[in-house]
Amino acid sequence: MKTDDDGSVRSVLRAFDLLALFTEHRRTWAVKDLTTASGLAKTTVLRLVATCEQRGLLWTRPDGRITVGPGMLRWAQLANTAWQLPEPVRQVLRELAAECRETVNLYVRSTSVLVCVAQQEGPLAIRHVGRVGDELPLGFGAAGRVLDGAEGAAVSHGEPEPGASSVATPVHDGDGRLLAALAITGPSSRFGPGEVAAFTEALTAASVRISQIGLATRAE
Amino acid sequence: MKTDDDGSVRSVLRAFDLLALFTEHRRTWAVKDLTTASGLAKTTVLRLVATCEQRGLLWTRPDGRITVGPGMLRWAQLANTAWQLPEPVRQVLRELAAECRETVNLYVRSTSVLVCVAQQEGPLAIRHVGRVGDELPLGFGAAGRVLDGAEGAAVSHGEPEPGASSVATPVHDGDGRLLAALAITGPSSRFGPGEVAAFTEALTAASVRISQIGLATRAE
Repeated sequence: MKTDDDGSVRSVLRAFDLLALFTEHRRTWAVKDLTTASGLAKTTVLRLVATCEQRGLLWTRPDGRITVGPGMLRWAQLANTAWQLPEPVRQVLRELAAECRETVNLYVRSTSVLVCVAQQEGPLAIRHVGRVGDELPLGFGAAGRVLDGAEGAAVSHGEPEPGASSVATPVHDGDGRLLAALAITGPSSRFGPGEVAAFTEALTAASVRISQIGLATRAE
Repeated sequence: MKTDDDGSVRSVLRAFDLLALFTEHRRTWAVKDLTTASGLAKTTVLRLVATCEQRGLLWTRPDGRITVGPGMLRWAQLANTAWQLPEPVRQVLRELAAECRETVNLYVRSTSVLVCVAQQEGPLAIRHVGRVGDELPLGFGAAGRVLDGAEGAAVSHGEPEPGASSVATPVHDGDGRLLAALAITGPSSRFGPGEVAAFTEALTAASVRISQIGLATRAE
């Protein structure tokens, strides 16, 4: 196996990155476009696609386009059950969303991105709507800065889109290790200095409660 | 990239098969056990785990055990949306389950296994309960025999467990290609010759309806 300096297996990373080109917004690809988008040689793309097909992760449709295969459902099932948060943590998210009247998200770091692992939508008609599984770049937005090591609470305006604001606080485990970022996100018009102060206070209290409960997922 | 005779990339298959060891029933592994279960050298396992960790698909916990990472949630989100069946097909499944009073499953073939892509549970207390994403070996059970090329309907008793019976029929596309197997599964005590004949008739009619609607998932 050809390994990179960090000990990772290059062809495996390429396969994962090829799979990552398939998103909710782009579920089918022509081989030609996969080649362009991945920057790999066409023969490499063809071999990686054939390999993913062998495990049902990709499918070549009769018209030649490549799409997501049913083998992904196995991973989906596993991820959905492994990443169920403890009910008491969900309760904290519900109470926080009700108190602050904004959407609450919990993010964990996964290498160079953050992944939303739980969300409780706020009660108002204009609200932040994301999805469990959504990724954000590390350092991006309030949660991204918390997970990038910012001290204490972080605030962002205009991310991930103009007019959106967010406040986030860190969640630690019993040994003080950073576990997650708890964030409140909504329209910037509702994130003035007074609200941000109140949100920060509510988030800090909720983060402490989650730290005490722990994030032990069912992945035991 | 080291390729096998069929053009697949060996290290990528190994990575997928390593990931496949993580199941709902076994969500964490020690490296030693992964080495035994995979039949790979320990150094290979460590490199593959490190590679999966780089993309957040696996995580090493503080106690050294390996578990499913949040990167899997991305695949979950994609698979769950890509494999949403058209609503008219879901309606056929609901009507069939109500008519036959047994659980209805739709399976597609993914290389050497079948994957359950939809399920409608029957109305009775004792009923078959499976899950979307569940896999069965090709040739196993009524659906497995249909997807392995059996002509017309197939019946199985005692699979996947003693006391379970199943009847399945093929679903074809407009060009006569085998797309899926539609199955009714329940306790063998309710699968006598009379019931099997009635189920076969209902399944055949439902399969024709699904063939007419098509299985075009949202993976367009």
